[in-house]
Amino acid sequence: MAKRSGKDQPVVGVDLGGTKILAAVVAEDGTLLGQAKKKTKADKGPLDVLGRMATTINEAIEDAGLARKDIAAIGVGSPGPLDPEAGIVVVAPNLGWKNVNVKAHLEGEFHIPTFIENDVNVGTLGEHRLGAGQGVSDLVGIFVGTGIGGGIILGGRLYQGFNKTAGEIGHMVIVDDGPLCGCGNRGCLEAVASRVAIAAEVAALAARGDAPYIAEHCGSDLRKIRSGTLARAIEAGDAFVESVVRKAAYNVGIGVANVINLLSPAAVVLGGGLVEAMEQILSLIHISEPTRPY
Amino acid sequence: MAKRSGKDQPVVGVDLGGTKILAAVVAEDGTLLGQAKKKTKADKGPLDVLGRMATTINEAIEDAGLARKDIAAIGVGSPGPLDPEAGIVVVAPNLGWKNVNVKAHLEGEFHIPTFIENDVNVGTLGEHRLGAGQGVSDLVGIFVGTGIGGGIILGGRLYQGFNKTAGEIGHMVIVDDGPLCGCGNRGCLEAVASRVAIAAEVAALAARGDAPYIAEHCGSDLRKIRSGTLARAIEAGDAFVESVVRKAAYNVGIGVANVINLLSPAAVVLGGGLVEAMEQILSLIHISEPTRPY
Repeated sequence: MAKRSGKDQPVVGVDLGGTKILAAVVAEDGTLLGQAKKKTKADKGPLDVLGRMATTINEAIEDAGLARKDIAAIGVGSPGPLDPEAGIVVVAPNLGWKNVNVKAHLEGEFHIPTFIENDVNVGTLGEHRLGAGQGVSDLVGIFVGTGIGGGIILGGRLYQGFNKTAGEIGHMVIVDDGPLCGCGNRGCLEAVASRVAIAAEVAALAARGDAPYIAEHCGSDLRKIRSGTLARAIEAGDAFVESVVRKAAYNVGIGVANVINLLSPAAVVLGGGLVEAMEQILSLIHISEPTRPY
Repeated sequence: MAKRSGKDQPVVGVDLGGTKILAAVVAEDGTLLGQAKKKTKADKGPLDVLGRMATTINEAIEDAGLARKDIAAIGVGSPGPLDPEAGIVVVAPNLGWKNVNVKAHLEGEFHIPTFIENDVNVGTLGEHRLGAGQGVSDLVGIFVGTGIGGGIILGGRLYQGFNKTAGEIGHMVIVDDGPLCGCGNRGCLEAVASRVAIAAEVAALAARGDAPYIAEHCGSDLRKIRSGTLARAIEAGDAFVESVVRKAAYNVGIGVANVINLLSPAAVVLGGGLVEAMEQILSLIHISEPTRPY
């Protein structure tokens, strides 16, 4: 292969999640050239995860039929808060990380310029450049999965705010004195609508003999209750799971409405594991009656 | 007086409120040259109010020792939503207005270029240019009075959003299935923290024999329960009123925290009748414990 100029060299994008690491080699026009995937295994500690990230990146480059010297840059979407300039993940509760320098580690390994940014921010940027939010200058991305996060595009650019923490929609309080959130507050959107919040509620139902699909397939093991499990339970006619998911979707709807009232964006793009696992959730989020759904 | 050039001619600013109309003649550097004030008397209809606005403007110009020809422009801060380009107040529930063309009316009367903008937006702009938000590029203004509104400055400029309705923080839902709001939704910040919401709660206490200061001074007449009344009741030691105001302040605190989580502004400026009437409310809003204050 002829040596490429810097401008049209492919890049590697890495999605560092609490469950899995995804790496993709992508051409400048967005064409997928190669990919690889590994489990995160966060319990083994940051150095182990960073090593597995490097392996995943190597496998993706190999899958693309390329070599390290062909890659112009590495970009990592990571849970945050993080410091994009220093390349440090400041705190990532789902990973158990505190002040992990991803940039230094990967640049030491690959000698390729490496950048990190909040996963939901890069997700929103991706939707803006190549996805559902193309051609719109003011856009909010809301990602409902293990937790709930958001990214904000204003005037066509990522808006990070004074503390680089803009878009923390998951910690918007929508239920006064509501369930305790991982952040220490009560009634955050994440505490009443994330996959983890739904799983806890569904597991409690299963434990008392309701939610038969969950009881049968997951017992009381919260980690087994994935977004796909919830989708399959609803398909199988588990009315208890549907009721819990319906209420969570209603709460996401409140979050979306709050964002619209505050920012009046041209578009809101929804994503994340829970939204991707069940198409029907979008119609539930659209319910606009001010009454409780159940 | 020598004829002024357009650039350093004074302007008239008008605050059109549900209770009163304020007009001020102001020099380019912000110096107050003259002012006037009248009751709004919205119940007499839009034409009557527009006539009284014109009278107030005339009296302010006279108070400044100037004539109409000395004024470069008129700017009106009005309840909204409104269409700034057309100069039309689209809906103003507190005034009972629908599609009132303020710009056309005042330009017909004064032959001076006239501009209208949402009152909380111009309030936030004022704090940014001349008040508590000077020197800050990302700023949110939150005004707690009869209702609750907000304005957003991003990158040093007023951010209006796609539908020109950005900053509607009063209609952010913070209490799932909470009290009914004037907008038709439930649990909006305005429904649990505005002066009107507080007055309704305090009047109910007074009616059952609690809130003695309110019972004595206002009876059950909600309109008599102004922000100043609430401040004086607390000063007089009315623990019931203090408890209600404390809870409202806590709810404003949730609203402020939600805005910070979403936008990470460099500053939040609080204003409005309720905040101006009682200095102690700021310390109540600062309470950050996730527990209910009472």
